[in-house]
Amino acid sequence: MIQSDYLKENPFLFSFVPMFYMVWADAILTPSEILKIRELIEQQVWITQKERTFLLSHLDPQNPPSPGQLKEWLFEIRRVSQDLTPQMKRSLVDIGIELARLNARNQDDKTLEAARAPLTDIEEALGILSREAAFHLRSQERTTQTGGQQTEASFDLNKMSELLDGKNRVVIRKVKTILSDPEFEYYKGESTAEYREQVLKWCQYLADQGFGGMAYPEAFGGQGDMASYFAIMETLSYHDLSMVIKFGVQFGLWGMSVYFLGTEKHHQQYLKDIGTLKLPGCFAMTETGHGSNVKGIETTATYHHKTKTLVINTPHHGAGKEYIGNAAVHGQMATVFAKLIIDEVDYGVNAFVVPLRDSDGHTVSGVIIEDCGPKMGLNGVDNGRIWFDEVVIPVENMLDKFASIDADGKFKSPITSDNRRFFTMLGTLVGGRIGIPRSGLSAMKTGLTIAIRYGDTRRQFGPENGSEVPILNYRTHQRRLMPLLAESYAIHFSLQYLTNRFLSRSEEDMQEIEAMAAGLKSFATWRTTHALQECREACGGKGYLSENRIDRLKNDTDVYTTFEGDNTVLMQLVAKSRLSEFKKEFSDINLFGVLSYVASQAKTSLSEMNPLTVRNTDPEHLLDFEFYLNAFRYRERDILTSAARRIKKHLDNGMDSFDAFNQTQYHMVNVGFAYIERLILEQFIAQVKKTEDEGCKMILTKLCQLFALSQMEKNKGWYLEHDYMAGVKTKAIRKMINQLCLEVRENAVPLVNAFEIPESCLAAPIAMK
Amino acid sequence: MIQSDYLKENPFLFSFVPMFYMVWADAILTPSEILKIRELIEQQVWITQKERTFLLSHLDPQNPPSPGQLKEWLFEIRRVSQDLTPQMKRSLVDIGIELARLNARNQDDKTLEAARAPLTDIEEALGILSREAAFHLRSQERTTQTGGQQTEASFDLNKMSELLDGKNRVVIRKVKTILSDPEFEYYKGESTAEYREQVLKWCQYLADQGFGGMAYPEAFGGQGDMASYFAIMETLSYHDLSMVIKFGVQFGLWGMSVYFLGTEKHHQQYLKDIGTLKLPGCFAMTETGHGSNVKGIETTATYHHKTKTLVINTPHHGAGKEYIGNAAVHGQMATVFAKLIIDEVDYGVNAFVVPLRDSDGHTVSGVIIEDCGPKMGLNGVDNGRIWFDEVVIPVENMLDKFASIDADGKFKSPITSDNRRFFTMLGTLVGGRIGIPRSGLSAMKTGLTIAIRYGDTRRQFGPENGSEVPILNYRTHQRRLMPLLAESYAIHFSLQYLTNRFLSRSEEDMQEIEAMAAGLKSFATWRTTHALQECREACGGKGYLSENRIDRLKNDTDVYTTFEGDNTVLMQLVAKSRLSEFKKEFSDINLFGVLSYVASQAKTSLSEMNPLTVRNTDPEHLLDFEFYLNAFRYRERDILTSAARRIKKHLDNGMDSFDAFNQTQYHMVNVGFAYIERLILEQFIAQVKKTEDEGCKMILTKLCQLFALSQMEKNKGWYLEHDYMAGVKTKAIRKMINQLCLEVRENAVPLVNAFEIPESCLAAPIAMK
Repeated sequence: MIQSDYLKENPFLFSFVPMFYMVWADAILTPSEILKIRELIEQQVWITQKERTFLLSHLDPQNPPSPGQLKEWLFEIRRVSQDLTPQMKRSLVDIGIELARLNARNQDDKTLEAARAPLTDIEEALGILSREAAFHLRSQERTTQTGGQQTEASFDLNKMSELLDGKNRVVIRKVKTILSDPEFEYYKGESTAEYREQVLKWCQYLADQGFGGMAYPEAFGGQGDMASYFAIMETLSYHDLSMVIKFGVQFGLWGMSVYFLGTEKHHQQYLKDIGTLKLPGCFAMTETGHGSNVKGIETTATYHHKTKTLVINTPHHGAGKEYIGNAAVHGQMATVFAKLIIDEVDYGVNAFVVPLRDSDGHTVSGVIIEDCGPKMGLNGVDNGRIWFDEVVIPVENMLDKFASIDADGKFKSPITSDNRRFFTMLGTLVGGRIGIPRSGLSAMKTGLTIAIRYGDTRRQFGPENGSEVPILNYRTHQRRLMPLLAESYAIHFSLQYLTNRFLSRSEEDMQEIEAMAAGLKSFATWRTTHALQECREACGGKGYLSENRIDRLKNDTDVYTTFEGDNTVLMQLVAKSRLSEFKKEFSDINLFGVLSYVASQAKTSLSEMNPLTVRNTDPEHLLDFEFYLNAFRYRERDILTSAARRIKKHLDNGMDSFDAFNQTQYHMVNVGFAYIERLILEQFIAQVKKTEDEGCKMILTKLCQLFALSQMEKNKGWYLEHDYMAGVKTKAIRKMINQLCLEVRENAVPLVNAFEIPESCLAAPIAMK
Repeated sequence: MIQSDYLKENPFLFSFVPMFYMVWADAILTPSEILKIRELIEQQVWITQKERTFLLSHLDPQNPPSPGQLKEWLFEIRRVSQDLTPQMKRSLVDIGIELARLNARNQDDKTLEAARAPLTDIEEALGILSREAAFHLRSQERTTQTGGQQTEASFDLNKMSELLDGKNRVVIRKVKTILSDPEFEYYKGESTAEYREQVLKWCQYLADQGFGGMAYPEAFGGQGDMASYFAIMETLSYHDLSMVIKFGVQFGLWGMSVYFLGTEKHHQQYLKDIGTLKLPGCFAMTETGHGSNVKGIETTATYHHKTKTLVINTPHHGAGKEYIGNAAVHGQMATVFAKLIIDEVDYGVNAFVVPLRDSDGHTVSGVIIEDCGPKMGLNGVDNGRIWFDEVVIPVENMLDKFASIDADGKFKSPITSDNRRFFTMLGTLVGGRIGIPRSGLSAMKTGLTIAIRYGDTRRQFGPENGSEVPILNYRTHQRRLMPLLAESYAIHFSLQYLTNRFLSRSEEDMQEIEAMAAGLKSFATWRTTHALQECREACGGKGYLSENRIDRLKNDTDVYTTFEGDNTVLMQLVAKSRLSEFKKEFSDINLFGVLSYVASQAKTSLSEMNPLTVRNTDPEHLLDFEFYLNAFRYRERDILTSAARRIKKHLDNGMDSFDAFNQTQYHMVNVGFAYIERLILEQFIAQVKKTEDEGCKMILTKLCQLFALSQMEKNKGWYLEHDYMAGVKTKAIRKMINQLCLEVRENAVPLVNAFEIPESCLAAPIAMK
């Protein structure tokens, strides 16, 4: 106690104790504030000069109370504050007066009441710190709105899972059952060689289940079921991603290249053995010197008329095949992409089946293979480099669906242009650009499941004198994870749509499907990378420990933004395709005409551009699907038009077209984004509209709104620049996102649980139910 | 040739060959365009019906020319196009007419000239594709502006290095020399145990050089040189980051905690052995249950009067120490943070030296240590978990600089409040928050060096019929890397400033320095994470291979955003500190008053808010430092004001202060960013202004402009929302950034070379000079 004898003689002075406690206990109060309080105490006329001196002596920074004294004050204060009403406990003065009253034994209430006003002056000088201190001084635990929020499912989990799985539910559940087998326990050792063997073993188990050849025709041991194949890839991706990529290399890249680029004889010879993993193989396209610009690869396949053979050759070191999965250890054959040379004429890139190793694992003569060595991730996949030194193969090994060499040694193809033929061949392999984002999405879902479950249980910080709060209740944490959760649902539905379009494709759909696949692949894999980074950080130190698996998910999927086409390059392809789509819409005029038309075109004055809409901040407007669709479509069209206009302007100024495209490259990437964002939005809205279950529909609506508004917020600079929205509206959007994050948070755990990721796959200790 | 006999009889038809070539060779032309060309050919009146029929037969998709025929056309065209002037080669018609002229042996120039107009109609129908085709058909190599850009240093590298190193150049060069020793070859094996021993060995070499104790007083084997210590940490970070963190744990955390929290007796007893690494130790603060909220740790140190001992105890499993560097294998002692209990009174968190292992490496009785296991990165550091089961230490082991237990067993401290005392203790350790971002910055510089050097030499894509172009010449690539290069310089200078402020600190500077350190640590480490991600992607598949080291850099530094304080949490501390700074500026009124003042305050109508400035897009304005300073400062002040206003509003509405801060959390993080961005800008500008060498000054000016404008572009949504800039201005900023990226690109390789990272540290094959 403050020199307790003196205090007991002058019990009214107890009324100052709470403030004194605060002055010395609070770590924020500045010296100038202490001065201010001293000043106010000096003005107190209801106490004697001696009392003032006594009080002021306790506000001398040179002579602070001891730590023990402070604790005694707190003990005393808490004791008395038990008897206060909740209302009174909001004020230091209330507490102080009550303390004085008790010590003065109620002998002179009037003096105390008179003291209330001047004391309140002092308290007000302390501002909000005083209220904060009152919380601090309470004996009961403080509760807050923030602390109160908790998980509460507003929908039926099982119905949501059914909705997510759709028609593939049976095969998805089968895969999940198999992954839950103890044989699929993660590899935890340090040996890459062992890890690779483990991955191969897993792939063998999967092949034994018939998963490998799922998409091949029944005649070759498959089930002709491409839809299931995609679902399998996606579901396997809840497990080790090295296994998924090895699986994809073997059954997707290697098998599908034989299936789609080869003809009956190749199918007969290879497909069954590929599907059972009896014949492990590779897809050898990329070279060290040519990755994105794959058209420029330099490996040659030279035809020899006399022997009817082809000689596969690597012309120089930098033209070696690079990053080839399955090459370093297991691959026995490969689909090799090489320039076909007949009579010194180059017929462009074609594909050939080339042996790499005999069944004992020794490389065949002329084949040199080197291990790519350790990688950022996917170290269970044996990537290698391959050089060919005049390797001779029979002409039958040419995969001759799109081009062939006839009996006279003449090149034959229904497609005149080498370029067009090559891109047609690549087009048949677009499935890879569907499988990869679906795999990435599964990793994103896993990361979100771990981070959201952890955020729901991990408590850190809290109000003074209250419990710690689950970190998922903090706004910054919600802002970090809830929009990503919404995105994971959004991407899910658009990848389902893309898959369906691909499965029911016609020839003339192909350009659109290829653009969609390229764009969604880029968008989804970039978002996967971003989401896993956020999840890592959101789990703090625990997120850094390998046992919680986010590191592996991040590192394994990191290359998804690069392989199957570098994302930045793909987005430009998408943009070019969009320009040419645009051109089609005006099929009666030509591109030149379109560019002129576009250049002279006045800005569309759409209805939503009216000043009222631009400033409309009504919640019902901000939550309206039509508002989103209009905005996304407007943006897409405007960016596309603007890109066309820019290119045209450069060309008109005599700029080389290569330079013109380079100058516009940044816009082109945005053309790709605007297109994909619109597409994802449309598919999400379509999904919401067709959802029958009310619980699911309601939460999906919120997720869709959160997705749409988050994209708008990301692009708000653009909307403001183009006067499509006023600042008042973008600010209202920010608030609405906060609100939606808060609402989605309660369903966040159920929403990730609806992914039904097997617990043995999740495996992260911080995410265990 | 097109049925060459007929053509030879009708040589004028050769004029159509270039277009025909294009129709069949080009992969973009759509069926509708082919239709259009057919239509136009049907309208050609200068040729006979028979000729028309002949021509149209070559435009039938059902009957395309063979691939071989196409190649013959190209051969013929290229042959003739050799004789064309550059001007003529821009048109398919020119090429076609010349081809016809040669075949017709110049017999009737008039007919051909008459054909020019109708042919041009067809060509125009093809739009820009025609010009593109003309490039394609050339015999000479096409050159473009994009392809032409190359590396050219406009400044003296050595002068720039001197400027970067500043006063620490001597020690920096010494460290670089030592790191280049063969003993510092990177560990490439797969065994974590081996890796940890290698890292320990490296640390021993560094200690032997006197680097470990550099900051300790001479009396204890050091040189009292904190500046050099920071420079050493930064320079070591060009090498293996596990080594850096182990070094930092031993000499920084363990050593500095003894130095700053202990007194003479502790210095005497431990410092010398710590500096020589004879006594490896730990810094045991974080617990599983309490990381960010470190004040809430639960380990206890209970005083026993009779024996004058303290008993260190972990009350439950979740209160074990977690992530403790040096704990799993090598640590013999630790600075343990625990709540001091005397006579059942809790005196808050204090620090104690506790033995962990004897010199044989056996854990002492009562200490349980578990390995944290594999991590995302830093696997050369032996992080562990520690539990204490009633471990007895003498009272002398309390690090008693700020609090002590006197002979009577009474708690003594010059700082009354437990909170304030604890934060004062933490404040002395702020050096960690300077060392970490400096280490991260080195990793960022390494990543940028690798990616930029690679981008300068890696060629991919190019104009049709032209060489492939270095990827660093592409706008998207420049946009990716150049602003990050500018940021690395910007962060460098601000961390130098922070270090200098810290080294010459006075007591009253501490609040500002702590805020600055927390903010810069967050900003710099987030940017490091982001930059390394970009570098990884910018290097494509090569960036994914471990040999190129970006994976390791990324994974090792990833936890920098978490340890030494979670970035999101730190940014809120920064914001709170800024609010209280704000308060100081109005020292005559109190916080309550400030909040009211702020709430009622009309928007400052600053000079730069006039309509002309808001729309000013003059290059000299956009490149003007004053413009940046005004904008950054305006933003900082406005966001701070707005955060204060929001909190006040919530409190006025009776919201609990904890909820009010949570509701404002997102703004608070932005308060932190706005402050740090302004600070970095100011320091960068100050550096430019004081740079004497003209070459360095010029390129630093550009980097500073690029940094400033990139931040503005990132924040353009905000500037537009607040009518600080009009759309026309933010668009002009985007263009200016493009231009600056282009200009900086030429100096990009010299700018990273100026970091003088030892080649043996870089080690990445793709980055070798």
